[in-house]
Amino acid sequence: MSTNKIVLALDGMGGDHAPDVIVNGADIARERYPGTSFLLFGDEARLKALVDKRKGLAQALEIVPSEDAVKADDKPSFAVRRRRKSSMWMAVEAAAQGRADTVVSAGNTGALLAISMFAMRMLEGADRPALASFMPTSRGETVMLDLGANLECDADNLAQFAVMGSVFAQALLGLDAPKVGLLNVGSEELKGHEELRQAAALLRRPGSPVNFHGFVEGNDIGAGVTDVVVTDGFTGNVALKAIEGTAKLTFQFVGDAFRTSTFAKIGYLFASGAWKKLRKRVDPRRYNGGVFLGLDGVCVKSHGGTDALGFAYAIGVAVDLVRYEYKNKLVEGLARLSEIRSAGEAPAASLQASGGTA
Amino acid sequence: MSTNKIVLALDGMGGDHAPDVIVNGADIARERYPGTSFLLFGDEARLKALVDKRKGLAQALEIVPSEDAVKADDKPSFAVRRRRKSSMWMAVEAAAQGRADTVVSAGNTGALLAISMFAMRMLEGADRPALASFMPTSRGETVMLDLGANLECDADNLAQFAVMGSVFAQALLGLDAPKVGLLNVGSEELKGHEELRQAAALLRRPGSPVNFHGFVEGNDIGAGVTDVVVTDGFTGNVALKAIEGTAKLTFQFVGDAFRTSTFAKIGYLFASGAWKKLRKRVDPRRYNGGVFLGLDGVCVKSHGGTDALGFAYAIGVAVDLVRYEYKNKLVEGLARLSEIRSAGEAPAASLQASGGTA
Repeated sequence: MSTNKIVLALDGMGGDHAPDVIVNGADIARERYPGTSFLLFGDEARLKALVDKRKGLAQALEIVPSEDAVKADDKPSFAVRRRRKSSMWMAVEAAAQGRADTVVSAGNTGALLAISMFAMRMLEGADRPALASFMPTSRGETVMLDLGANLECDADNLAQFAVMGSVFAQALLGLDAPKVGLLNVGSEELKGHEELRQAAALLRRPGSPVNFHGFVEGNDIGAGVTDVVVTDGFTGNVALKAIEGTAKLTFQFVGDAFRTSTFAKIGYLFASGAWKKLRKRVDPRRYNGGVFLGLDGVCVKSHGGTDALGFAYAIGVAVDLVRYEYKNKLVEGLARLSEIRSAGEAPAASLQASGGTA
Repeated sequence: MSTNKIVLALDGMGGDHAPDVIVNGADIARERYPGTSFLLFGDEARLKALVDKRKGLAQALEIVPSEDAVKADDKPSFAVRRRRKSSMWMAVEAAAQGRADTVVSAGNTGALLAISMFAMRMLEGADRPALASFMPTSRGETVMLDLGANLECDADNLAQFAVMGSVFAQALLGLDAPKVGLLNVGSEELKGHEELRQAAALLRRPGSPVNFHGFVEGNDIGAGVTDVVVTDGFTGNVALKAIEGTAKLTFQFVGDAFRTSTFAKIGYLFASGAWKKLRKRVDPRRYNGGVFLGLDGVCVKSHGGTDALGFAYAIGVAVDLVRYEYKNKLVEGLARLSEIRSAGEAPAASLQASGGTA
C-alpha cells in the first residue's frame, strides 16, 4: 500500500452515536485528507441510507455488510470468541490482513483491544500493547501512555512503552527526538517502584532509541516538561481521568464566576470571543484518538461519545500514523532497545526478584 | 488536655519562609481560634524579635529554644538519627509526650513523617500512616489519601486508610457519614488490582466503620462523587500533582484568553471581581494542611512554600482534628474494622497469594 492512497477500515456500528457519527466523520475526513478511502463495516441498509445523503462520499467508500455488532457491555473475551461477524471484528481483520492500512473504531475499548491483539498480534520486540493519546499542555502537546491497557507493568514493558510513545510523538507531533519522561513520585527517600528505576536505567544506556529525560511528576504532565509521559496502565488511567475531571471542574468554576454578578455577565459578553477560542484550544475532540501501540497493525480508538468532528480527528490520527510509517519505525526502535538490553551485563527482567524463588 | 484550651507545637524553622511565616501564621491563627496557645520551637533570638513585633502574641506563645534545624534536603533517616535537637524533632516530641495537643510543621515532608513515626508510633489497628489532604470539587470538598507516605499498599492498608479518611472528613468537613470511594480504573474486564477488590470486599462487610460507596475513577475526584477518595501513595501522589498541574494550566489558558484582544481585556475588567472571588474559591492556601493519619498523635504538614495565611489554615486543620477528638474516633473505627475483618471467614491478607510459594 502506498502512503499516498490510504485505505481506512471503519467500524460503522461502534460508539454511542453510530452509525451516523461514523458516516459523517468519514465525510469530514475525506475532505480533510485527500487520497483516503474507506471500507465501512456494518448494517448495509442503514449505512447506505446515510452515505447516500452525503454527496460524493459513496465514491470514496465501500460498504462491507456485517451481520453483528459488539455491544458496549460485551466482555472482551466474549467479543473475541462470539462476535466474529461483527463490524468491529471485520474492520480489524481487514487492517490485519492488509486490505486496509488501519482501522478506526468508536466501540467498546476492551473488546477492540482484545480483538486487535488476537487478529493483529504483537510486533517483534513488543511484549504488551499500550493505549496512548495526547493532550494539550502549556508548551504544546504531550503524549501519554499506557492509559489502561495493562494495569501491571514490569521494567521491560515500561521501556518498550517509552519507545512506542517516542515513535507516536514523532508521527503525531512531528518531533525529531521527543523528550520522554517516566512518571514517578518526587517525595524524599521515596524513589518510586523498583520497576521504574530499572526501566530508567535501561533507557539511559548508550545507544538508547529514546531521548530519555528521566523521571517526571504528575504536575509535569500539564507543564509539558516532556513530550512523552510513560506510566503503567493503572496510574495512567487514573491520571488521565483526573486531568480531564480537573479541566472540566476548572471551566465550570470559571463559568460559575461569570454568572455571579451583572458586571461579570457584561465582562463575559466582551470576552466571549476569547472564551470561544479557548474552548477550541482545549476542545476534547481535537484530542480524540487513542491508539493501541505495539500491535502489528494500526488500530485507533475514538471516544465512544464523540461527534462527527471528533471521529474525523481520530481518523486523522490513523492517517498520520500510516503516513509516518509508524510500524516500521517502531520495529527499528524496539530492535535497538532489545540490543542495548542484551548488551547490559544484567538484563532488567532478571533483576526483578521479589518474593518467590530468591 | 481539654478541648477548649488547645496547645500547638510549632516547628519555627521549617519551610521556605521560616521563621517569619510561622510567627505571622500563629498570630493570624491566635485571633481566628480563641483559646489556642503555642509552643514555638527554634532559634530563640530570631523568634523573639519576630514575636515581639506582634502585639499580644507573646502572651499566647512560649518560645522553646532549639539548637538545630532539619534541612530541606535532609534524608528522613538522617533527620531521625541526627536532628534530635532540631525544632522539628522537639516540636513533634512535645506533641508525642502530651505537652502539646498537636504539631504543625512546614518543613521537610519525609523527615517529618519519619520523625513522627519514630516519636509518636502508630495507633492500635493502623499498620502504616497515610498522608491526607482535601481539595475543592464541584460539590464542595473531598479528602484524598494516601498522597505519598506509602507507595505500595495491601488490602489491609487501603481498608485502614478508608477508616482514617472517613474520620478525617468527619473532623474537617463536618460530615456524619462521609461517602468513601476506592480509586480504580473503569475499563472493561480490567477490574483493578487484586488488593483493591479485597479492600472493597472488606469495607462492604456488615458492621463496616465506613460508609463505603465502592470504586471511583479519576474524574470522580473533581466531580465530588465521594467525600473521601482512597488510594495507594504512588497513585495518590501522581493524581494530586496531576490535578494541581491541570488546575494551574487551565487558569493559565483562561488568563491567556483574556489577553488575546482588546474586547477580552475590557471583559476582564468587568469580570475582575468575579475572577477574584474564583481565585479565592480555589485558593491553595485554603487547602493547606496535609495530615499524617494513623499516628498516635496529630501531625499536620503545611506546604513548605506557603505564606502566613496558608500556615494559619494548616493550624486550623490541627485545631479541627484536636477539637473533634480525632484520635479516639479513629481508634474506635480501626477496632471495628479489625472486628469485621476477623469475623470474615477469609482474612483479606491471607488471600494475597501471587507468585512465590503457590
